[in-house]
Amino acid sequence: MQTGQHLLGMRGLAADDIHGLLDLADGFKAISRRTIKKVPSLRGRTVLNAFFEASTRTRVSFELAGKRLSADTVNISASGSSLAKGESLLDTAQTLDAMQADAVIIRHAASGAPHFISERISARVINAGDGMHEHPTQALLDMKTIRDHFGKVEGLDIAIIGDIAHSRVARSNLIALSTCGATLRVAGPQTVLPRELASAYGCTVCKNVTQAIEGAHVVMALRLQKERMTAGLLPNMREYAIEFGINAKMLESTRPDAILMHPGPVNRGVELSPDVVDGPRSVILDQVENGVAVRCAVLYSILGGETP
Amino acid sequence: MQTGQHLLGMRGLAADDIHGLLDLADGFKAISRRTIKKVPSLRGRTVLNAFFEASTRTRVSFELAGKRLSADTVNISASGSSLAKGESLLDTAQTLDAMQADAVIIRHAASGAPHFISERISARVINAGDGMHEHPTQALLDMKTIRDHFGKVEGLDIAIIGDIAHSRVARSNLIALSTCGATLRVAGPQTVLPRELASAYGCTVCKNVTQAIEGAHVVMALRLQKERMTAGLLPNMREYAIEFGINAKMLESTRPDAILMHPGPVNRGVELSPDVVDGPRSVILDQVENGVAVRCAVLYSILGGETP
Amino acid sequence: MQTGQHLLGMRGLAADDIHGLLDLADGFKAISRRTIKKVPSLRGRTVLNAFFEASTRTRVSFELAGKRLSADTVNISASGSSLAKGESLLDTAQTLDAMQADAVIIRHAASGAPHFISERISARVINAGDGMHEHPTQALLDMKTIRDHFGKVEGLDIAIIGDIAHSRVARSNLIALSTCGATLRVAGPQTVLPRELASAYGCTVCKNVTQAIEGAHVVMALRLQKERMTAGLLPNMREYAIEFGINAKMLESTRPDAILMHPGPVNRGVELSPDVVDGPRSVILDQVENGVAVRCAVLYSILGGETP
Repeated sequence: MQTGQHLLGMRGLAADDIHGLLDLADGFKAISRRTIKKVPSLRGRTVLNAFFEASTRTRVSFELAGKRLSADTVNISASGSSLAKGESLLDTAQTLDAMQADAVIIRHAASGAPHFISERISARVINAGDGMHEHPTQALLDMKTIRDHFGKVEGLDIAIIGDIAHSRVARSNLIALSTCGATLRVAGPQTVLPRELASAYGCTVCKNVTQAIEGAHVVMALRLQKERMTAGLLPNMREYAIEFGINAKMLESTRPDAILMHPGPVNRGVELSPDVVDGPRSVILDQVENGVAVRCAVLYSILGGETP
Repeated sequence: MQTGQHLLGMRGLAADDIHGLLDLADGFKAISRRTIKKVPSLRGRTVLNAFFEASTRTRVSFELAGKRLSADTVNISASGSSLAKGESLLDTAQTLDAMQADAVIIRHAASGAPHFISERISARVINAGDGMHEHPTQALLDMKTIRDHFGKVEGLDIAIIGDIAHSRVARSNLIALSTCGATLRVAGPQTVLPRELASAYGCTVCKNVTQAIEGAHVVMALRLQKERMTAGLLPNMREYAIEFGINAKMLESTRPDAILMHPGPVNRGVELSPDVVDGPRSVILDQVENGVAVRCAVLYSILGGETP
Repeated sequence: MQTGQHLLGMRGLAADDIHGLLDLADGFKAISRRTIKKVPSLRGRTVLNAFFEASTRTRVSFELAGKRLSADTVNISASGSSLAKGESLLDTAQTLDAMQADAVIIRHAASGAPHFISERISARVINAGDGMHEHPTQALLDMKTIRDHFGKVEGLDIAIIGDIAHSRVARSNLIALSTCGATLRVAGPQTVLPRELASAYGCTVCKNVTQAIEGAHVVMALRLQKERMTAGLLPNMREYAIEFGINAKMLESTRPDAILMHPGPVNRGVELSPDVVDGPRSVILDQVENGVAVRCAVLYSILGGETP
């Protein structure tokens, strides 16, 4: 990835770009494990976290990434913002831009919001999740977690379980993992698993979870969005847990060294049984740690920080 | 302006004080355009943003100003604050003061709140907007924008359009612009345009917008406060747009090099037609940029930072 | 107190530990009074303020303490956090831990929450108030205020007035003050003043306020929690003020050099009459100032900062 680019999605990133970011993230992960977890790379740069959807872990992760690179970070949330005064997204973005922001990290309920903004401001835009579209840093942290465990991504069998159609996490991962040569299988409720997935992302649409995870290197469960249930698109939580929840017994059919992933926060007892959340295959907290590291790598790459 | 002063309003500042701050802001604007937009002037100082009214742009602008001067900045908002526990404004201010704040930036719905506080605490107080009273840093950023464009303020014809009587932006600008020798005209709904304005601020009260802006160097539209409409003091938005909204055709009667200003966020299609917001005369984003610069200048002057 | 310890409560801290922290706080208080109120002791460390109960003064106090030690500080509040997504406290804490937090400062409505967390994460945990249990840094700042005034804690007569049973401020103070050899008396509404207090904390349960404060060195009023009144456990505010409110006349029966304390924010006219809040015996603002100093001392001790 080159200085001056936006990071709007995994679409369009080559395998080399992705591995380059993950290599860089290896270094930043080591830095975050030091006592003094800070480098001067982005001293004097301005990084704005504009979260128009509630989030703690992603906002904190980006904020820590900025601070560990010595950038000045400022948070904006929807509540208390001028959006409450009817200010448009574009006006907000142009305002932040006029304050000489170097990077604007944006999470927004509207798919495409970061792309729209990126064409109209000077600051670099990083998509921290837009509607049902993409969440590229989540895919990067997932890939780093996979690569840390298996030493590679290419050739691995990866099962993604859940509401594929509405998940920006799934979409970014499907794009990036197939770019990097993984073999993808998906399973989930039929109502949110269109047949077109196979052709769109080169993945196998499985008829049930058992089929999807058999022999897999990686089982990635998606978070159940309760909003979708209300809309009648998904079964209730109890039914979902029975049909799509993953427990220790089911994981026996995966490879012996298989890992279990989840973007968090987990609805314990729904997507995952409590024992597997905290079990030996779970790499959920590794994902969180890698989140800070890949976000450091993205900020560093985009803003062209000094070599650490 | 001298070290140790409060900035409570434009009332009482001499033309030399104002131009001195604007000169200083010129330097800080250049710093904000650098890659490393930070100077060590206020390292180790504590700047508290106490916003008891919702605001994003002003809070972010002050926060960036503090950070670019290397001060430690901490935000306090009304929601989640002890005010919810019934703590009085004075108790809050004395508490912040006891924590050895160097500057307390305060926005409050009550006119006079910053003045009240300033007499009772040791920290320097900066008014970031108090009720319908003053908003001095807005006037400073407006004057810097005007001076950047025309090289001066003195002798310019400046039209202010909108709800003059309830606007702290208008009040601070009327005071400061007349101090600096501009010629002022105002227009707006009769219900919010008392005859006394003329004698109080030395401005011409025009009978309509057309008269106010003819031949003007500067057209400054005020933000329509929807709260006032509810109170029956203003026409509805549609009527307001027809009678007081500014469009490209109207601007033809101004001077050829005239600029269009608005404190933001704009209600597009109400105070200003969308084409003029983004049109060649609009300096709205320059105002935003200058906002950070004048706030750097104010903090630097008041807290007596090292020469940058 | 030693590097690597948690600070969960005053229970278990020896008098030497407490005085050691107060000695350290003396130095940090001096630093906060300097123009440049910042030392590099915790540069590059990550301090997370996780406030799941609304608070301004305590959060700002901890945030300033972290910043004055040059740590990177990040705030998390209940609103807007993943807790709104149903994330458990443990998941939240493990997530913050995985981001390589050095210290997690936690305020939570559930008694024991910080203890629960501390056994499950690597970061050091500081209790900033848990339910009706403990609030150790409040006790430390109260003791520093007492020690600053009398040069010692041992042998002083200290009266605590209010809803003892439900107050974490009272509990932490009773434990710590008795550890350090003070003589304790309590008074308050009978419904919230169980007889067992005497044996549990070695204090004298007085039959009224007059008896409790007579000849005291220190009068510490607790904040009236309005939530308790709703529950019918306390008299209404008017009745409370009459029976338990403290005024200047009552203070005449204390020692001539007695001080008046309150953890703030004060309900003026309820726990304390307005004249005594601002009167010569009041050390309420000293308490606030000492709050930042003792929090610096705690963070510095726990995280093992470089000698300042």
